Amino acid sequence: MIKKPVVAVIGAGFGGLAVARALKGADVEVHLIDSRNHHIFQPLLYQVATAGLEPEEIAHAIRGEVRRQANVRFRMARVVSGDLLAKLLVTSTGESIAFDYLVLAAGAVTSDFGISGVAEHAFGLKSLEDAIALRSHIVKKFEEADALERKVPDGMLTFVVAGGGPTGVEMAGALTELFDKVLRKDFPNLDFGAVRVVLLEALDRLLPPFDVRLQQYTLATLKKFGVDVRFGAQVISVTTEGVTLKDGSAIPAKTVVWGAGITGNPLASHLALPMVRGGRVAVNDDLTVPGIPGVFVIGDLAAGKDVHGNVYPQLAQAAIQGGKHVAFQIVRQINNLQTQPFAYKDPGFMATIGRQEAVAQFPSGLKVRGAIAWIMWLFLHLLYLVGFRNRTQVLINWIWSYFSYERGARLIMWQ
Amino acid sequence: MIKKPVVAVIGAGFGGLAVARALKGADVEVHLIDSRNHHIFQPLLYQVATAGLEPEEIAHAIRGEVRRQANVRFRMARVVSGDLLAKLLVTSTGESIAFDYLVLAAGAVTSDFGISGVAEHAFGLKSLEDAIALRSHIVKKFEEADALERKVPDGMLTFVVAGGGPTGVEMAGALTELFDKVLRKDFPNLDFGAVRVVLLEALDRLLPPFDVRLQQYTLATLKKFGVDVRFGAQVISVTTEGVTLKDGSAIPAKTVVWGAGITGNPLASHLALPMVRGGRVAVNDDLTVPGIPGVFVIGDLAAGKDVHGNVYPQLAQAAIQGGKHVAFQIVRQINNLQTQPFAYKDPGFMATIGRQEAVAQFPSGLKVRGAIAWIMWLFLHLLYLVGFRNRTQVLINWIWSYFSYERGARLIMWQ
Repeated sequence: MIKKPVVAVIGAGFGGLAVARALKGADVEVHLIDSRNHHIFQPLLYQVATAGLEPEEIAHAIRGEVRRQANVRFRMARVVSGDLLAKLLVTSTGESIAFDYLVLAAGAVTSDFGISGVAEHAFGLKSLEDAIALRSHIVKKFEEADALERKVPDGMLTFVVAGGGPTGVEMAGALTELFDKVLRKDFPNLDFGAVRVVLLEALDRLLPPFDVRLQQYTLATLKKFGVDVRFGAQVISVTTEGVTLKDGSAIPAKTVVWGAGITGNPLASHLALPMVRGGRVAVNDDLTVPGIPGVFVIGDLAAGKDVHGNVYPQLAQAAIQGGKHVAFQIVRQINNLQTQPFAYKDPGFMATIGRQEAVAQFPSGLKVRGAIAWIMWLFLHLLYLVGFRNRTQVLINWIWSYFSYERGARLIMWQ
Repeated sequence: MIKKPVVAVIGAGFGGLAVARALKGADVEVHLIDSRNHHIFQPLLYQVATAGLEPEEIAHAIRGEVRRQANVRFRMARVVSGDLLAKLLVTSTGESIAFDYLVLAAGAVTSDFGISGVAEHAFGLKSLEDAIALRSHIVKKFEEADALERKVPDGMLTFVVAGGGPTGVEMAGALTELFDKVLRKDFPNLDFGAVRVVLLEALDRLLPPFDVRLQQYTLATLKKFGVDVRFGAQVISVTTEGVTLKDGSAIPAKTVVWGAGITGNPLASHLALPMVRGGRVAVNDDLTVPGIPGVFVIGDLAAGKDVHGNVYPQLAQAAIQGGKHVAFQIVRQINNLQTQPFAYKDPGFMATIGRQEAVAQFPSGLKVRGAIAWIMWLFLHLLYLVGFRNRTQVLINWIWSYFSYERGARLIMWQ
């Protein structure tokens, strides 16, 4: 019996799962490795953090995803070391995995850019635990403020969101919705004049890749929701008391959400891969790594470039397309065919700002905003959510929230 | 303006919520105090622990429950001390609450009966965190076993459930279902011969309050599911390696679930209330505390007795009925009327064993078992679940699980 080629895939996010699925029926043995036992639908994490969705609704057991596929084996483990030229990985369970092909799909992690206090005092948003911790913290601040017999102290109900990209915009919008539509009714005796949502952006505009009119629409909408948007605001430190900006001003705040940046998973540099800006791996146009045969990098971790030299965006779609491409190239290589270059088909950008408010921009030049963009956003996110059950649960939750102005999951846990 | 009488209610479980609701429209000021911000539907916690339901599906924000009721104010706090004769409570937020009437509805906590290692190594099942921790632990044991390149060590996949009451029976049954219907497909390479569920009962029968034929049916059903039921098994210690029984035998087990007993919330003895067996408070037949005017105790914490001298069972129904009764008595006292004795209307007992298997017994003498009892159980639990949304989500989850033999929530978190 000839041993089948082994394809090791590190990471079961959008990219890694796409590789595994695209190799369905292929004459290979796929070893899918992730430190967690569940895939999460990252673009909806902010809804978990703002009590709009339940954690289990945007997560799916990886084994459930791949168990109908006989050539995939899942391992819950971290990769602790590896010799990519010798084609060997070692995991946290002590197992050695010899591979013929390796796909690095380990994604990105929150980056503090070395800013003091971010790691200790700001909330990142990369895992279900992050989202539950943030949700619990937010609701607890309202409980604490309500328990006071005096005026709410400065900053106790100030929620600073750092970063004016999609994460920051969606988070800031969702916070105002949670506060105005839900918590205002939950805490009738609380002075909501003390509640502030501040969105900090170091540049002079929100949602950088979007058309300027959509950027302005987003800004106007956030302002309408009561978000205090500050441009040119560069955070230099975060403490338990708030943030300090480069211009010397300070914002008292008991809650800081860090949406200001991500960096490639440190595993890549640990495995001595060639790195470029943003902690991403330099790749050839077929997504292989220069000088290391059989090793591919996809998704947020890869710095793939289009024909104009622009690096691909760190979006789910780029990871999924990269995953499919790489699976196909591996099959080609096994059949002694040359690899082909990867070309990202840009489906456009979307960001939701709040109830009936979103912006979307398509490669055709079409720009949509407001309620229509919001409905498109809902529809596409439901479509891409993994699993029939998750889709149904999310749909019900959204319909229910829409009509009831309620949030079912505003529970404080582990506090 | 005449100050309205203040009714302090400690605990927002079934009993405490029933008091608050029954006082709707009454000319009182209700202060509802709970250390958590959510009410949980405790009888379904075992389904969260076995990945059948999502935590948020059996929980509801307390403020959401009471916010349409103008005379209720919620406080998230623990009661740290009190002088019941002086009618004063002090909470963990430093607030003093002067009351005219007090209802203690603080429920019960897991009791280790002083058995060595239970508190440290066994899993209780009283909160959402407990249930998520147990769920994560269980699934993680399977991941660990699957990662081994050798035979599964003794006890790694042994799950000991201590206590043959409803909690133990439901837990043991649900574990076999999770293992046989779901994890067996998730872990196709794992030797399921190493998986064992052991149910320990110190006495010689399961479900003590049930008719002997239903007890025997339960035993036969659990055996059919593969549960190793051991009678006369008294645990004397629990360690990280397993349990030791009084007869000197040891059961290697990495997972011990403690369903062997509860005791009244220690707050009661801390407040110097008159205690009886099981950490419960001695009460008069109107559920007041002897010698302390205006103080009532209900639910799991109260040792109320029927006309035959039997103590009321520690069930949701007894707490709800007690809560309604006490609310009514408080209104009577305000109107200078004598209090009336509480009489528990026994609705019967139910316990589910697994898929299409349950037992139920009604005061009329009717005994039901198997699929019909199971459907009655499903229906009644849905009916009593708080909130339309929770009901819908649970119903969908149950229907989906029934037809797909799946468990959506088998996620490992905080491990």
